[in-house]
Amino acid sequence: MSVVNVGLIGAGTVGCGVIKILDRNKEIIEKRTGIAPNLKKIADIDPDRKRPVRIPKGKITRKADELVNDPSIDIVVELIGGTTIARDLVLSALRNKKHVVTANKALLAHHGKEIFATAAENGVEVGFEASVGGGIPIIKSTLESFAANNILSIHGIITGTSNYILSRMTDEGSEFGDVLEEAQKEGYAEADPSFDVDGIDAAHKLSILVMLAFGRYIDFGRIHVEGIRTITPLDISFADELGYKIKLLAIAKAIDEGLEAGVYPALVKKGTQLADVSGAFNAIYVVGDALGPAMLYGKGAGMMPTASAVVSDVLQIGKHISLGNAHLPPPRLYAEKSSLPLIKMSDTVNKYYIRFQAEDRPGVLGRITGGLGSNGISIESVIQKGRHHGGGDVPVVIMTHEAREKDLLKALRQIGRLSSIRPGTMFLRIEDL
Amino acid sequence: MSVVNVGLIGAGTVGCGVIKILDRNKEIIEKRTGIAPNLKKIADIDPDRKRPVRIPKGKITRKADELVNDPSIDIVVELIGGTTIARDLVLSALRNKKHVVTANKALLAHHGKEIFATAAENGVEVGFEASVGGGIPIIKSTLESFAANNILSIHGIITGTSNYILSRMTDEGSEFGDVLEEAQKEGYAEADPSFDVDGIDAAHKLSILVMLAFGRYIDFGRIHVEGIRTITPLDISFADELGYKIKLLAIAKAIDEGLEAGVYPALVKKGTQLADVSGAFNAIYVVGDALGPAMLYGKGAGMMPTASAVVSDVLQIGKHISLGNAHLPPPRLYAEKSSLPLIKMSDTVNKYYIRFQAEDRPGVLGRITGGLGSNGISIESVIQKGRHHGGGDVPVVIMTHEAREKDLLKALRQIGRLSSIRPGTMFLRIEDL
Repeated sequence: MSVVNVGLIGAGTVGCGVIKILDRNKEIIEKRTGIAPNLKKIADIDPDRKRPVRIPKGKITRKADELVNDPSIDIVVELIGGTTIARDLVLSALRNKKHVVTANKALLAHHGKEIFATAAENGVEVGFEASVGGGIPIIKSTLESFAANNILSIHGIITGTSNYILSRMTDEGSEFGDVLEEAQKEGYAEADPSFDVDGIDAAHKLSILVMLAFGRYIDFGRIHVEGIRTITPLDISFADELGYKIKLLAIAKAIDEGLEAGVYPALVKKGTQLADVSGAFNAIYVVGDALGPAMLYGKGAGMMPTASAVVSDVLQIGKHISLGNAHLPPPRLYAEKSSLPLIKMSDTVNKYYIRFQAEDRPGVLGRITGGLGSNGISIESVIQKGRHHGGGDVPVVIMTHEAREKDLLKALRQIGRLSSIRPGTMFLRIEDL
Repeated sequence: MSVVNVGLIGAGTVGCGVIKILDRNKEIIEKRTGIAPNLKKIADIDPDRKRPVRIPKGKITRKADELVNDPSIDIVVELIGGTTIARDLVLSALRNKKHVVTANKALLAHHGKEIFATAAENGVEVGFEASVGGGIPIIKSTLESFAANNILSIHGIITGTSNYILSRMTDEGSEFGDVLEEAQKEGYAEADPSFDVDGIDAAHKLSILVMLAFGRYIDFGRIHVEGIRTITPLDISFADELGYKIKLLAIAKAIDEGLEAGVYPALVKKGTQLADVSGAFNAIYVVGDALGPAMLYGKGAGMMPTASAVVSDVLQIGKHISLGNAHLPPPRLYAEKSSLPLIKMSDTVNKYYIRFQAEDRPGVLGRITGGLGSNGISIESVIQKGRHHGGGDVPVVIMTHEAREKDLLKALRQIGRLSSIRPGTMFLRIEDL
C-alpha cells in the first residue's frame, strides 16, 4: 500500500464530494489500486460553514499557503475556481514540486501554457480530468486512448446548464428567459448565468480539448463564441419539423486550411447520439482517422461525478509516485502554429438554417431566394406557412446547402434591407454527425 | 524520442491496421507522445498473402518464436486469436520479460488469471484495450478513470454483429435467418456466426469487464449466456409498440446478495442512449456510485478502430518503458470470492416481457393471468389483439412487474400445460436504464 498525502484547497461542492469519496470508498480504492490517498489538510476561506461531510477540527485551515508549503504534501487539489488566486496557488504548488489536480477550466484556458510549462520544469504532473465533462473520461481518452489517431473533429455538449435549458425549451415550448429563471430557482443555473448560457464555459473547455487533440494552444479570445439567449421556441419547433434538435456545441475541426474552433448553437439531426443527449448530461463526440466516430457520455457537473474525476487523477498520480515519481510528461504541443492556423468564422463553410420574419405578400420569397442565389448560396428546402389573410408577418425558414459564412452574411445584409423583411433574421449552422 | 521495438504476431485485418497506423500517423504519434514505435518484425502463418499494406521483405517470418525470443523486442503484439497457440506465445513472451498487447478476448476470458499472474511475476505489462469494444476506451476508463467508484452495473452492447442483425431486423421487419445470411454475404457476420449471435463473444468480453469493474474472475462457464437466434420480428414489433427496442446486452450488476453476470437479449426503453446504439456500433453503459451513469460509444470492431486501441496500448507501454520500465501493476483482484458470489440466473429479479401463443377463445387470458398470479407475478400491461373470427391462434403479450426468475419459469411451465397454450412461449427480460 502506497500512501500519498493530499492537500485540498476549496471545500465547496466538489471538494466535499472528494472528501466523501475518499471516506466512503476508501477500502475499495486501496484494494483496487494499491494507493491510499491520505487527505492531510484542507483549506477553505470559510472553515466553519455547514457542509454535507464531517471534517475533523484541526484538519481545516483558512490559509491555503499552509498546504502549498507543507513538505509532506504530495498532491495539491485545487477546487476554488477563478483565475487569480487559483493561478498563484497552483504555480506555487508546482514550484514546490507538488503535483496538482484541478477542475478549473477557466484557469487552464487562460494560463494552461504557463501551468504546464511550470509543471514540466519542476518534474511534476497536472491532473485535469475534472475540468471537462465532469466524470466523463474525455481528457484521458483524448490524451492516451486516441493517441494513435489524427483527430478530425470534436463536437461537445459540455455545458450542462445550457443543455438543460435547451432541453426544457424543446420539451415544453417555453421561452429562454422563463426556463432560465426556473433553472435558477432549482439550482440548475447560477445567479449570474452568463458563463454557462453565453458559451464562455464551453469555450474554456474547448480550448483544453483543442490543446489535447490538436496539440496547440489557442488564444482564448480568438475562439468564436455564441450563446443560447437568442434561441426561440419558434426556431426549436421549426428545427423539429425539419428533423433536427438545437444544441449548444463546442466544435473543433481540422480541415485542409487549418483548424476551426467555435462554440455556438447548431442543428443536429434527430436520432443521432448527440441529439439524444438531454437534460444536464454532457457528451463529447470525437472522430479520429483510425477510431472513426466515438462518443463519451455522462454527468458533466455536480458534486460526485466531478469528484470521481478528481480522485481518479489523484490515484493516477499516486501510482506514478509509488513507482518512484515516474510521471508522464505533460501534454505535448506538437502543432507548429503555422501548420494549423485558426480559421476565422467568416471563412468557414457550413449548411445553414435561416429564419426571416417577412411581410406576408406575393413576391417576398422570390426576393429572399434571389438574394441568396446572387451570393452563390443554394437552397435545400423552404418552409413558408401560417399565411394570414390580409397581410401581417410570417416566418420564412430556409435550409441551405454548404456556403461560406461571409457569403451568407453578405446575403443576409442585402436581404435585410428589403422593405418586406423585418429585423431579427435568425441563422444557425447545421452540423452533420 | 524513445524508440520501442515492437513484434507483431498476426498480420490479418487488425494487424494490417496496426501496420497502417504506425506508418501513416508516425509523425503525429512521435510528436504527440515522444514515443517512436519501431515495428521490428512481423510473424504470420502466410507471409506471402496479399495485404492492404506493404510489408518489406525480410521483415515478415512464419516463425512467431523468432519474435518471442528476440532480445531486442520490447513489446509483442498478439493478434492471431484463439486460445491455444496464442496462449503459448503470450506466456512465452511474458516469461521473456516482454510486454504484451493483445486484442484476444477469448484468451483473456479463459486464461486471464494465468496471463496476468505471469505478467506480474515477470515485471511486465499486458495491454488489452482492444479486447472489448474495439476503439472504445472502456478498459482504461474502467481501470483508471472510474477507479474511485463502486461500480454498480454495466450494460454493454459489445457484439457488433448481433447489434447489426437486430438493428436490421428492427428496421426491415425481417427474420433472423434472412438477415444473418445477408450479413454473412456482406462480411458483417462470420461464416460460423455462433460466437457472435449466440452471445459467446459478448460473454468473453463481459468476463474481462467484470474482472476490471468488480475485481474478480468469474469462471467463464458460469456466465448465463443466451443469443439472439430466438428473436422474431413479432417480438421486435410488440416491443416497439410497448416503447422498447430489443438489444443483445452483456450485463453485470452488483446487488446486496452478490454479482449478477449474464448475456441475453433484453428490452431497453426507446430514447435512452443504449437503445439508440444501432448497426455495428458498440456502447458500454456503466453506473458508478459517484460517477452516476456514463456511456462510451464507438466502433466495436474492424481493422482501424481495433488497431487504434492496440497502438494506444503500445504507446502507453512505450511511455512506461521510457520512464525506466515504471509500469503499472496488472489489474488487481480485490473481491474476496465469498464477498461477491455469482448469483444464479434463476435467483435474479427482473421485469419480463412474455409472449404466449394462445388459442383464440374466451377465458384464455384469465387462465394465463391466473397462472402468473398464483406464482406471485403481477402484471403491468397486456396486449391481446389480432383476434380472428372463428378461432385460430393469437399472440398474448404480457409485461410483468419485478419477479424472481425461478417463479416466472414455474409459472410458464404451468401455463404451458394448458391445452389452449401453444408451445414456444417467449420471454425476455426488461432492463431499466
